[in-house]
Amino acid sequence: MPDTVSPPEAYPVTERNKVRRLHERGRYDHASVHAILDAAMICHIAYIIDGQPYCTPTAFWREGEHLYWHGSSASRMLRKQKAGIPVCLTVTHLDSLVLARCGFNHSVDYRSAMCFGEAYFVEDPAEKARALDVMINRFYPDRAATLRPSTGQELKATTVIGMRIEQASGKIRSKGVADEEEDYALPIYAARFPVRQVIGAAEPCPRMPAGVATPDGLAGFAEGRRLDEILLESQHRLYGDE
Amino acid sequence: MPDTVSPPEAYPVTERNKVRRLHERGRYDHASVHAILDAAMICHIAYIIDGQPYCTPTAFWREGEHLYWHGSSASRMLRKQKAGIPVCLTVTHLDSLVLARCGFNHSVDYRSAMCFGEAYFVEDPAEKARALDVMINRFYPDRAATLRPSTGQELKATTVIGMRIEQASGKIRSKGVADEEEDYALPIYAARFPVRQVIGAAEPCPRMPAGVATPDGLAGFAEGRRLDEILLESQHRLYGDE
Repeated sequence: MPDTVSPPEAYPVTERNKVRRLHERGRYDHASVHAILDAAMICHIAYIIDGQPYCTPTAFWREGEHLYWHGSSASRMLRKQKAGIPVCLTVTHLDSLVLARCGFNHSVDYRSAMCFGEAYFVEDPAEKARALDVMINRFYPDRAATLRPSTGQELKATTVIGMRIEQASGKIRSKGVADEEEDYALPIYAARFPVRQVIGAAEPCPRMPAGVATPDGLAGFAEGRRLDEILLESQHRLYGDE
Repeated sequence: MPDTVSPPEAYPVTERNKVRRLHERGRYDHASVHAILDAAMICHIAYIIDGQPYCTPTAFWREGEHLYWHGSSASRMLRKQKAGIPVCLTVTHLDSLVLARCGFNHSVDYRSAMCFGEAYFVEDPAEKARALDVMINRFYPDRAATLRPSTGQELKATTVIGMRIEQASGKIRSKGVADEEEDYALPIYAARFPVRQVIGAAEPCPRMPAGVATPDGLAGFAEGRRLDEILLESQHRLYGDE
Protein backbone atom coordinates (compact mmCIF):
# COMPACT_ATOMS: atom_id res chain seq x y z
CA MET A 1 0.00 0.00 0.00
CA PRO A 2 1.48 3.36 -0.91
CA ASP A 3 2.06 5.96 1.79
CA THR A 4 -0.56 8.65 1.65
CA VAL A 5 0.20 12.28 2.32
CA SER A 6 -2.60 14.44 3.68
CA PRO A 7 -3.04 17.80 1.99
CA PRO A 8 -2.10 20.66 4.32
CA GLU A 9 -5.01 21.94 6.40
CA ALA A 10 -6.41 25.14 5.00
CA TYR A 11 -9.10 27.73 5.78
CA PRO A 12 -12.21 27.66 3.58
CA VAL A 13 -12.14 30.45 0.99
CA THR A 14 -15.22 32.59 0.41
CA GLU A 15 -15.86 36.18 -0.63
CA ARG A 16 -14.99 37.21 2.94
CA ASN A 17 -11.37 36.07 3.06
CA LYS A 18 -10.43 35.77 -0.63
CA VAL A 19 -7.33 37.83 -1.41
CA ARG A 20 -8.44 40.16 -4.20
CA ARG A 21 -5.66 42.55 -5.03
CA LEU A 22 -2.47 40.75 -6.13
CA HIS A 23 -4.06 37.41 -5.33
CA GLU A 24 -0.86 35.54 -6.18
CA ARG A 25 0.37 36.71 -2.78
CA GLY A 26 -2.45 34.90 -0.96
CA ARG A 27 -2.04 31.99 1.49
CA TYR A 28 -4.85 29.97 3.06
CA ASP A 29 -3.07 27.03 4.70
CA HIS A 30 -3.00 26.95 8.49
CA ALA A 31 0.80 26.72 8.70
CA SER A 32 1.41 29.90 6.68
CA VAL A 33 -1.22 31.90 8.56
CA HIS A 34 -0.05 30.64 11.98
CA ALA A 35 3.56 31.52 11.20
CA ILE A 36 2.54 35.13 10.53
CA LEU A 37 0.40 35.33 13.68
CA ASP A 38 2.92 33.63 15.97
CA ALA A 39 5.72 36.05 15.04
CA ALA A 40 3.68 38.97 16.43
CA MET A 41 2.61 40.37 19.77
CA ILE A 42 0.45 43.28 18.53
CA CYS A 43 -2.56 42.93 16.24
CA HIS A 44 -5.26 45.34 15.07
CA ILE A 45 -8.89 44.36 15.57
CA ALA A 46 -11.79 45.76 13.55
CA TYR A 47 -15.28 45.70 15.02
CA ILE A 48 -18.50 47.69 14.72
CA ILE A 49 -20.37 49.78 17.29
CA ASP A 50 -23.63 51.37 16.15
CA GLY A 51 -22.63 51.19 12.48
CA GLN A 52 -19.21 52.80 13.07
CA PRO A 53 -16.08 50.71 12.39
CA TYR A 54 -13.28 50.82 14.99
CA CYS A 55 -9.70 49.61 14.65
CA THR A 56 -7.94 48.95 17.96
CA PRO A 57 -4.37 47.74 18.53
CA THR A 58 -3.85 45.15 21.24
CA ALA A 59 -1.57 42.34 22.37
CA PHE A 60 -2.95 38.92 21.43
CA TRP A 61 -1.97 35.27 21.46
CA ARG A 62 -2.94 32.05 19.66
CA GLU A 63 -3.84 28.68 21.10
CA GLY A 64 -4.66 26.24 18.32
CA GLU A 65 -7.48 27.75 16.27
CA HIS A 66 -8.39 30.29 18.95
CA LEU A 67 -7.05 33.81 19.37
CA TYR A 68 -7.20 35.72 22.67
CA TRP A 69 -6.72 39.32 23.77
CA HIS A 70 -7.77 41.37 26.72
CA GLY A 71 -9.50 44.58 27.63
CA SER A 72 -10.07 46.25 24.28
CA SER A 73 -12.96 48.62 23.78
CA ALA A 74 -14.67 45.85 21.80
CA SER A 75 -15.81 44.95 25.33
CA ARG A 76 -18.27 47.83 25.07
CA MET A 77 -19.98 46.21 22.13
CA LEU A 78 -19.83 42.72 23.61
CA ARG A 79 -21.45 43.94 26.79
CA LYS A 80 -24.39 45.41 24.89
CA GLN A 81 -24.98 42.30 22.90
CA LYS A 82 -24.68 38.96 24.63
CA ALA A 83 -24.05 36.98 21.45
CA GLY A 84 -20.65 36.94 19.74
CA ILE A 85 -19.80 39.94 17.59
CA PRO A 86 -18.06 39.72 14.22
CA VAL A 87 -14.44 40.85 14.26
CA CYS A 88 -11.45 40.87 11.92
CA LEU A 89 -8.08 40.47 13.61
CA THR A 90 -5.10 41.49 11.47
CA VAL A 91 -1.35 41.13 11.94
CA THR A 92 1.24 42.86 9.75
CA HIS A 93 5.02 42.60 9.58
CA LEU A 94 6.82 45.21 7.47
CA ASP A 95 9.91 43.52 6.01
CA SER A 96 11.37 46.05 3.57
CA LEU A 97 10.93 49.29 1.65
CA VAL A 98 11.09 48.80 -2.11
CA LEU A 99 12.26 51.76 -4.22
CA ALA A 100 11.61 51.07 -7.87
CA ARG A 101 12.23 53.02 -11.09
CA CYS A 102 8.67 54.35 -11.39
CA GLY A 103 6.10 55.38 -8.82
CA PHE A 104 3.79 52.51 -9.69
CA ASN A 105 6.33 49.82 -8.76
CA HIS A 106 7.27 51.30 -5.39
CA SER A 107 6.19 48.81 -2.78
CA VAL A 108 7.03 47.11 0.50
CA ASP A 109 7.80 43.52 1.34
CA TYR A 110 5.50 42.34 4.10
CA ARG A 111 3.70 39.43 5.73
CA SER A 112 0.12 39.95 6.89
CA ALA A 113 -2.75 37.78 8.09
CA MET A 114 -6.46 38.60 8.43
CA CYS A 115 -8.56 36.36 10.68
CA PHE A 116 -12.35 36.36 10.80
CA GLY A 117 -14.54 35.10 13.61
CA GLU A 118 -16.88 36.03 16.43
CA ALA A 119 -15.53 37.52 19.64
CA TYR A 120 -16.83 36.24 22.99
CA PHE A 121 -16.00 36.84 26.65
CA VAL A 122 -13.98 34.24 28.54
CA GLU A 123 -16.04 34.43 31.74
CA ASP A 124 -15.14 31.37 33.81
CA PRO A 125 -12.69 32.60 36.51
CA ALA A 126 -10.46 29.50 36.31
CA GLU A 127 -10.31 29.68 32.52
CA LYS A 128 -9.53 33.40 32.72
CA ALA A 129 -6.71 32.85 35.22
CA ARG A 130 -5.27 30.13 33.00
CA ALA A 131 -5.55 32.36 29.91
CA LEU A 132 -3.57 35.13 31.58
CA ASP A 133 -0.82 32.72 32.67
CA VAL A 134 -0.70 31.45 29.10
CA MET A 135 -0.40 34.99 27.79
CA ILE A 136 2.63 35.65 30.01
CA ASN A 137 4.30 32.33 29.17
CA ARG A 138 3.56 32.62 25.47
CA PHE A 139 5.58 35.85 25.30
CA TYR A 140 8.08 35.19 28.13
CA PRO A 141 8.87 31.47 28.52
CA ASP A 142 8.23 30.00 32.00
CA ARG A 143 7.62 33.44 33.51
CA ALA A 144 4.11 33.10 35.01
CA ALA A 145 5.22 30.79 37.85
CA THR A 146 7.89 33.28 38.94
CA LEU A 147 5.41 36.16 39.46
CA ARG A 148 3.41 37.34 42.46
CA PRO A 149 0.09 35.49 41.95
CA SER A 150 -2.86 37.50 40.62
CA THR A 151 -5.36 38.71 43.19
CA GLY A 152 -9.10 38.13 42.83
CA GLN A 153 -9.48 41.87 42.30
CA GLU A 154 -6.97 41.83 39.42
CA LEU A 155 -8.71 38.91 37.74
CA LYS A 156 -12.06 40.65 38.12
CA ALA A 157 -10.65 43.82 36.54
CA THR A 158 -9.32 41.89 33.54
CA THR A 159 -11.47 41.15 30.51
CA VAL A 160 -10.35 38.26 28.33
CA ILE A 161 -11.84 38.02 24.87
CA GLY A 162 -11.50 35.05 22.56
CA MET A 163 -12.43 34.08 19.01
CA ARG A 164 -12.25 30.91 16.98
CA ILE A 165 -10.63 31.47 13.59
CA GLU A 166 -13.49 30.67 11.21
CA GLN A 167 -11.62 31.88 8.16
CA ALA A 168 -8.29 33.52 7.52
CA SER A 169 -5.94 34.56 4.77
CA GLY A 170 -2.26 35.38 4.71
CA LYS A 171 -0.57 37.68 2.22
CA ILE A 172 3.16 37.75 1.58
CA ARG A 173 5.36 39.90 -0.66
CA SER A 174 9.06 39.18 -0.53
CA LYS A 175 10.43 39.84 -4.01
CA GLY A 176 12.16 43.21 -3.46
CA VAL A 177 12.56 45.42 -6.55
CA ALA A 178 10.44 44.30 -9.51
CA ASP A 179 10.40 46.78 -12.40
CA GLU A 180 9.09 46.72 -15.96
CA GLU A 181 11.63 44.97 -18.18
CA GLU A 182 12.23 48.10 -20.29
CA ASP A 183 12.90 50.25 -17.20
CA TYR A 184 15.92 48.36 -15.83
CA ALA A 185 18.34 50.14 -18.18
CA LEU A 186 17.27 53.62 -17.01
CA PRO A 187 19.81 55.54 -14.90
CA ILE A 188 17.53 55.58 -11.84
CA TYR A 189 18.51 54.49 -8.36
CA ALA A 190 16.53 51.42 -7.24
CA ALA A 191 17.01 49.48 -4.03
CA ARG A 192 15.47 47.47 -1.24
CA PHE A 193 15.92 48.64 2.37
CA PRO A 194 15.33 45.79 4.83
CA VAL A 195 13.21 46.73 7.86
CA ARG A 196 13.21 44.82 11.12
CA GLN A 197 11.81 45.27 14.60
CA VAL A 198 14.51 44.59 17.19
CA ILE A 199 14.79 44.69 20.97
CA GLY A 200 17.37 46.73 22.83
CA ALA A 201 19.33 45.88 25.96
CA ALA A 202 17.18 45.04 28.99
CA GLU A 203 16.66 47.96 31.37
CA PRO A 204 16.24 46.18 34.71
CA CYS A 205 13.94 47.93 37.17
CA PRO A 206 16.20 49.94 39.53
CA ARG A 207 14.02 48.98 42.50
CA MET A 208 14.80 45.24 42.33
CA PRO A 209 16.41 43.85 45.50
CA ALA A 210 20.09 42.88 45.10
CA GLY A 211 20.78 39.42 43.73
CA VAL A 212 17.75 38.88 41.46
CA ALA A 213 19.12 37.17 38.35
CA THR A 214 17.76 37.33 34.81
CA PRO A 215 15.54 34.24 34.46
CA ASP A 216 16.70 31.48 32.08
CA GLY A 217 13.41 31.81 30.18
CA LEU A 218 14.51 35.23 28.92
CA ALA A 219 17.77 33.96 27.41
CA GLY A 220 16.35 34.61 23.94
CA PHE A 221 15.76 38.28 24.67
CA ALA A 222 19.24 39.38 23.60
CA GLU A 223 20.05 42.93 22.54
CA GLY A 224 19.62 43.48 18.79
CA ARG A 225 17.58 40.33 18.11
CA ARG A 226 14.50 40.48 15.89
CA LEU A 227 11.31 40.54 17.92
CA ASP A 228 9.45 38.36 15.38
CA GLU A 229 12.04 35.58 15.80
CA ILE A 230 11.92 35.79 19.60
CA LEU A 231 8.12 35.60 19.61
CA LEU A 232 8.05 32.64 17.23
CA GLU A 233 10.52 30.78 19.48
CA SER A 234 8.43 31.50 22.58
CA GLN A 235 5.30 30.20 20.87
CA HIS A 236 7.04 27.00 19.73
CA ARG A 237 8.53 26.45 23.17
CA LEU A 238 5.02 26.48 24.68
CA TYR A 239 3.05 24.69 21.96
CA GLY A 240 5.52 22.97 19.64
CA ASP A 241 4.31 23.05 16.05
CA GLU A 242 0.57 23.16 16.84
CA MET B 1 -1.95 94.79 25.73
CA PRO B 2 -0.77 91.38 26.96
CA ASP B 3 0.34 88.80 24.44
CA THR B 4 -2.31 86.17 23.93
CA VAL B 5 -1.54 82.52 23.41
CA SER B 6 -4.01 80.46 21.41
CA PRO B 7 -4.88 77.11 22.93
CA PRO B 8 -3.49 74.22 20.86
CA GLU B 9 -5.87 73.00 18.16
CA ALA B 10 -7.62 69.82 19.18
CA TYR B 11 -10.12 67.29 17.82
CA PRO B 12 -13.64 67.42 19.24
CA VAL B 13 -14.22 64.63 21.75
CA THR B 14 -17.40 62.58 21.62
CA GLU B 15 -18.34 59.00 22.46
CA ARG B 16 -16.68 57.95 19.19
CA ASN B 17 -13.11 59.00 19.91
CA LYS B 18 -13.04 59.28 23.71
CA VAL B 19 -10.27 57.16 25.19
CA ARG B 20 -12.05 54.88 27.65
CA ARG B 21 -9.57 52.43 29.08
CA LEU B 22 -6.70 54.19 30.89
CA HIS B 23 -7.98 57.55 29.76
CA GLU B 24 -5.02 59.38 31.31
CA ARG B 25 -3.07 58.12 28.29
CA GLY B 26 -5.37 59.99 25.85
CA ARG B 27 -4.33 62.88 23.60
CA TYR B 28 -6.66 64.96 21.41
CA ASP B 29 -4.49 67.87 20.25
CA HIS B 30 -3.54 67.94 16.58
CA ALA B 31 0.20 68.09 17.26
CA SER B 32 0.26 64.90 19.36
CA VAL B 33 -1.90 62.95 16.90
CA HIS B 34 0.05 64.18 13.86
CA ALA B 35 3.38 63.23 15.46
CA ILE B 36 2.16 59.63 15.86
CA LEU B 37 0.80 59.48 12.29
CA ASP B 38 3.82 61.12 10.67
CA ALA B 39 6.26 58.65 12.21
CA ALA B 40 4.56 55.77 10.38
CA MET B 41 4.25 54.37 6.87
CA ILE B 42 1.80 51.54 7.56
CA CYS B 43 -1.65 51.95 9.10
CA HIS B 44 -4.59 49.59 9.61
CA ILE B 45 -7.98 50.63 8.28
CA ALA B 46 -11.30 49.29 9.59
CA TYR B 47 -14.35 49.42 7.34
CA ILE B 48 -17.58 47.50 6.89
CA ILE B 49 -18.83 45.44 3.95
CA ASP B 50 -22.31 43.92 4.31
CA GLY B 51 -22.18 44.11 8.10
CA GLN B 52 -18.77 42.43 8.32
CA PRO B 53 -15.82 44.44 9.71
CA TYR B 54 -12.51 44.27 7.82
CA CYS B 55 -9.08 45.39 8.99
CA THR B 56 -6.60 46.03 6.18
CA PRO B 57 -2.96 47.16 6.45
CA THR B 58 -1.78 49.73 3.93
CA ALA B 59 0.74 52.51 3.36
CA PHE B 60 -0.76 55.95 3.99
CA TRP B 61 0.29 59.58 4.18
CA ARG B 62 -1.01 62.80 5.74
CA GLU B 63 -1.47 66.20 4.12
CA GLY B 64 -2.88 68.68 6.64
CA GLU B 65 -6.11 67.22 7.98
CA HIS B 66 -6.43 64.69 5.16
CA LEU B 67 -5.11 61.13 5.05
CA TYR B 68 -4.53 59.22 1.81
CA TRP B 69 -3.88 55.61 0.82
CA HIS B 70 -4.27 53.57 -2.28
CA GLY B 71 -5.78 50.39 -3.52
CA SER B 72 -7.17 48.75 -0.44
CA SER B 73 -10.15 46.46 -0.65
CA ALA B 74 -12.21 49.27 0.88
CA SER B 75 -12.48 50.17 -2.81
CA ARG B 76 -14.97 47.33 -3.14
CA MET B 77 -17.30 48.98 -0.66
CA LEU B 78 -16.76 52.48 -2.04
CA ARG B 79 -17.62 51.28 -5.51
CA LYS B 80 -20.96 49.86 -4.36
CA GLN B 81 -21.94 52.99 -2.55
CA LYS B 82 -21.15 56.31 -4.14
CA ALA B 83 -21.23 58.32 -0.89
CA GLY B 84 -18.31 58.29 1.53
CA ILE B 85 -18.04 55.26 3.81
CA PRO B 86 -17.12 55.46 7.51
CA VAL B 87 -13.61 54.25 8.30
CA CYS B 88 -11.25 54.17 11.24
CA LEU B 89 -7.56 54.51 10.40
CA THR B 90 -5.18 53.42 13.16
CA VAL B 91 -1.40 53.72 13.57
CA THR B 92 0.57 51.94 16.29
CA HIS B 93 4.21 52.13 17.33
CA LEU B 94 5.44 49.48 19.79
CA ASP B 95 8.14 51.13 21.93
CA SER B 96 8.93 48.58 24.64
CA LEU B 97 7.99 45.36 26.40
CA VAL B 98 7.29 45.86 30.10
CA LEU B 99 7.89 42.87 32.41
CA ALA B 100 6.42 43.58 35.83
CA ARG B 101 6.27 41.63 39.11
CA CYS B 102 2.69 40.38 38.58
CA GLY B 103 0.76 39.40 35.47
CA PHE B 104 -1.63 42.32 35.79
CA ASN B 105 1.11 44.95 35.47
CA HIS B 106 2.76 43.43 32.41
CA SER B 107 2.36 45.94 29.62
CA VAL B 108 3.99 47.60 26.63
CA ASP B 109 4.99 51.18 25.99
CA TYR B 110 3.41 52.40 22.77
CA ARG B 111 2.08 55.34 20.78
CA SER B 112 -1.14 54.89 18.83
CA ALA B 113 -3.59 57.10 17.00
CA MET B 114 -7.14 56.36 15.80
CA CYS B 115 -8.63 58.64 13.14
CA PHE B 116 -12.30 58.72 12.15
CA GLY B 117 -13.73 60.02 8.91
CA GLU B 118 -15.40 59.12 5.63
CA ALA B 119 -13.37 57.60 2.82
CA TYR B 120 -13.84 58.90 -0.73
CA PHE B 121 -12.19 58.26 -4.11
CA VAL B 122 -9.74 60.83 -5.48
CA GLU B 123 -11.00 60.69 -9.05
CA ASP B 124 -9.59 63.72 -10.85
CA PRO B 125 -6.60 62.42 -12.90
CA ALA B 126 -4.42 65.48 -12.20
CA GLU B 127 -5.15 65.31 -8.49
CA LYS B 128 -4.43 61.58 -8.50
CA ALA B 129 -1.10 62.06 -10.28
CA ARG B 130 -0.14 64.75 -7.80
CA ALA B 131 -1.19 62.55 -4.85
CA LEU B 132 1.06 59.74 -6.03
CA ASP B 133 4.03 62.09 -6.43
CA VAL B 134 3.37 63.37 -2.93
CA MET B 135 3.28 59.82 -1.61
CA ILE B 136 6.73 59.09 -3.06
CA ASN B 137 8.23 62.39 -1.84
CA ARG B 138 6.64 62.11 1.57
CA PHE B 139 8.50 58.84 2.20
CA TYR B 140 11.60 59.44 0.03
CA PRO B 141 12.54 63.15 -0.16
CA ASP B 142 12.75 64.63 -3.69
CA ARG B 143 12.43 61.20 -5.31
CA ALA B 144 9.36 61.60 -7.57
CA ALA B 145 11.15 63.90 -10.07
CA THR B 146 13.94 61.32 -10.53
CA LEU B 147 11.60 58.51 -11.62
CA ARG B 148 10.33 57.36 -14.97
CA PRO B 149 7.00 59.27 -15.25
CA SER B 150 3.80 57.33 -14.65
CA THR B 151 1.93 56.17 -17.74
CA GLY B 152 -1.78 56.84 -18.26
CA GLN B 153 -2.34 53.12 -17.83
CA GLU B 154 -0.57 53.08 -14.45
CA LEU B 155 -2.58 56.04 -13.20
CA LYS B 156 -5.77 54.37 -14.35
CA ALA B 157 -4.85 51.19 -12.51
CA THR B 158 -4.21 53.07 -9.27
CA THR B 159 -6.98 53.86 -6.82
CA VAL B 160 -6.33 56.74 -4.43
CA ILE B 161 -8.59 57.02 -1.42
CA GLY B 162 -8.73 60.00 0.91
CA MET B 163 -10.43 60.97 4.15
CA ARG B 164 -10.64 64.16 6.17
CA ILE B 165 -9.87 63.55 9.85
CA GLU B 166 -13.19 64.42 11.51
CA GLN B 167 -12.09 63.19 14.90
CA ALA B 168 -9.03 61.47 16.29
CA SER B 169 -7.41 60.40 19.50
CA GLY B 170 -3.86 59.49 20.40
CA LYS B 171 -2.83 57.17 23.20
CA ILE B 172 0.65 57.03 24.69
CA ARG B 173 2.21 54.85 27.36
CA SER B 174 5.87 55.49 28.11
CA LYS B 175 6.40 54.82 31.81
CA GLY B 176 8.13 51.42 31.68
CA VAL B 177 7.77 49.21 34.77
CA ALA B 178 5.05 50.39 37.18
CA ASP B 179 4.29 47.92 39.98
CA GLU B 180 2.20 48.02 43.15
CA GLU B 181 4.20 49.71 45.90
CA GLU B 182 4.22 46.60 48.09
CA ASP B 183 5.56 44.42 45.22
CA TYR B 184 8.84 46.23 44.58
CA ALA B 185 10.61 44.41 47.42
CA LEU B 186 9.77 40.95 46.03
CA PRO B 187 12.69 38.97 44.58
CA ILE B 188 11.18 38.96 41.06
CA TYR B 189 12.97 40.03 37.89
CA ALA B 190 11.35 43.13 36.34
CA ALA B 191 12.60 45.05 33.33
CA ARG B 192 11.78 47.10 30.27
CA PHE B 193 13.02 45.90 26.85
CA PRO B 194 13.07 48.76 24.34
CA VAL B 195 11.68 47.86 20.89
CA ARG B 196 12.48 49.75 17.74
CA GLN B 197 11.92 49.32 14.02
CA VAL B 198 15.15 49.94 12.12
CA ILE B 199 16.29 49.83 8.51
CA GLY B 200 19.19 47.72 7.30
CA ALA B 201 21.83 48.54 4.71
CA ALA B 202 20.47 49.41 1.26
CA GLU B 203 20.44 46.49 -1.18
CA PRO B 204 20.85 48.29 -4.54
CA CYS B 205 19.13 46.56 -7.46
CA PRO B 206 21.83 44.50 -9.21
CA ARG B 207 20.41 45.50 -12.60
CA MET B 208 21.22 49.24 -12.27
CA PRO B 209 23.56 50.57 -14.97
CA ALA B 210 27.04 51.47 -13.71
CA GLY B 211 27.47 54.93 -12.23
CA VAL B 212 24.01 55.53 -10.72
CA ALA B 213 24.65 57.22 -7.37
CA THR B 214 22.51 57.11 -4.24
CA PRO B 215 20.33 60.25 -4.40
CA ASP B 216 20.97 62.97 -1.80
CA GLY B 217 17.33 62.73 -0.72
CA LEU B 218 18.05 59.29 0.73
CA ALA B 219 20.90 60.48 2.96
CA GLY B 220 18.70 59.89 6.02
CA PHE B 221 18.23 56.21 5.15
CA ALA B 222 21.34 55.05 7.00
CA GLU B 223 21.81 51.48 8.22
CA GLY B 224 20.51 50.96 11.74
CA ARG B 225 18.43 54.15 11.96
CA ARG B 226 14.93 54.07 13.41
CA LEU B 227 12.28 54.07 10.69
CA ASP B 228 9.93 56.29 12.75
CA GLU B 229 12.60 59.00 12.95
CA ILE B 230 13.36 58.79 9.22
CA LEU B 231 9.66 59.06 8.33
CA LEU B 232 9.12 62.04 10.64
CA GLU B 233 12.07 63.82 9.02
CA SER B 234 10.73 63.16 5.52
CA GLN B 235 7.31 64.52 6.47
CA HIS B 236 8.81 67.68 7.99
CA ARG B 237 11.05 68.19 4.99
CA LEU B 238 8.00 68.24 2.70
CA TYR B 239 5.50 70.04 4.91
CA GLY B 240 7.37 71.74 7.73
CA ASP B 241 5.40 71.65 10.95
CA GLU B 242 1.94 71.65 9.34
